[in-house]
Amino acid sequence: MSTPSTPASSKSPPGGPSRDVVWDAGIQARGVREGLLGQKAATVWMTGISGSGKSTVAAEVERRLVASGRLAYRLDGDNLRHGLNADLGFSAEDRTENIRRAGEVCRLIADTGAIVIATFISPFAADRAACRRVHEAAGIPFIEVHVHCPLEVAESRDPKGLYQRARKGEIKDFTGIGQGYEPPSDPEIDLDTSKLSIDAAAEALIESLRKRLA
Amino acid sequence: MSTPSTPASSKSPPGGPSRDVVWDAGIQARGVREGLLGQKAATVWMTGISGSGKSTVAAEVERRLVASGRLAYRLDGDNLRHGLNADLGFSAEDRTENIRRAGEVCRLIADTGAIVIATFISPFAADRAACRRVHEAAGIPFIEVHVHCPLEVAESRDPKGLYQRARKGEIKDFTGIGQGYEPPSDPEIDLDTSKLSIDAAAEALIESLRKRLA
Repeated sequence: MSTPSTPASSKSPPGGPSRDVVWDAGIQARGVREGLLGQKAATVWMTGISGSGKSTVAAEVERRLVASGRLAYRLDGDNLRHGLNADLGFSAEDRTENIRRAGEVCRLIADTGAIVIATFISPFAADRAACRRVHEAAGIPFIEVHVHCPLEVAESRDPKGLYQRARKGEIKDFTGIGQGYEPPSDPEIDLDTSKLSIDAAAEALIESLRKRLA
Repeated sequence: MSTPSTPASSKSPPGGPSRDVVWDAGIQARGVREGLLGQKAATVWMTGISGSGKSTVAAEVERRLVASGRLAYRLDGDNLRHGLNADLGFSAEDRTENIRRAGEVCRLIADTGAIVIATFISPFAADRAACRRVHEAAGIPFIEVHVHCPLEVAESRDPKGLYQRARKGEIKDFTGIGQGYEPPSDPEIDLDTSKLSIDAAAEALIESLRKRLA
């Protein structure tokens, strides 16, 4: 029933206010919901090329967290493109807007107290940095996870048959072939999925979360 | 640890898939998280003109729900315009996109298992109907609440001084003055805030939720 005097969500996030729009400080503080859930909110941002293992590892992390009583929620790039971002394509400009919106949605979902596990190729470092800033301004931990393996390994996995089509020229702007991927220079967590099993990668990620959100 | 065989979130939402985007059915079902939280997810969509009392009633509803151990999360039109929708203005077209995105975000947040309390003027019936469809496709209750009072009462409250500025012509496209408001024809809940106290309105809303989410 207590309402802290300085709600964590009362700060105006970056991006600047629109005309005549007042930031509402009366909204319940995230801390109250974190207390309810018995956990700390965070966004775990998994970045990497198609086939690197982002979704596979994320699914196992989500499963383990939920099984241990944590409210974890996985937000997937493909799924977001079916709804919120259905109006966006794959040009560099649209990818930037795709990630901008994804970052804002992660922040909102994490503001409920949840641990968001976001899996987005997010090839551009500047876009990821912008997501981090949005989280930092809101006081929500942003944990960048670089999920990687050699391109030829990702291409051999080719879970959606997209590399094959990109090589045939059927898909342009494909990350790793027609468009570049800028690896994180200093990610919180680094997972080489050509060396780690799914279980080992999930365990490493969760162990790191345990320390960071303690 | 159980993963139901038909995850609630495995259905492709309306809007149609983008190119080469595969809907990921491996995501944990909402039901698992609802079980964890001991509640049913829903979106409570509060619509009404500026000054009708949406935010005031919503704040009290959120406070009561959280105090009783429910994970409730308030999503406010103004706050969303600081972040996700900072690129949008107030033309009819931008209002429609504002509400489209808001509806998608409500669906995502409710998919965590939370009760979302959304306060958006949302003046156009077709936009609200689209939000309802998005929720129905995902199997999430969409509870439309019409928060209203006579225009002169809302104008006399004028919590942000906006009516005064709209009357002076400083704000165009202002709902109720320069732009129309289409009231819901069949809302789940109707709250006349010129007759109900804040407490009574909040109590009526929560009582209705209790029955609908039982």
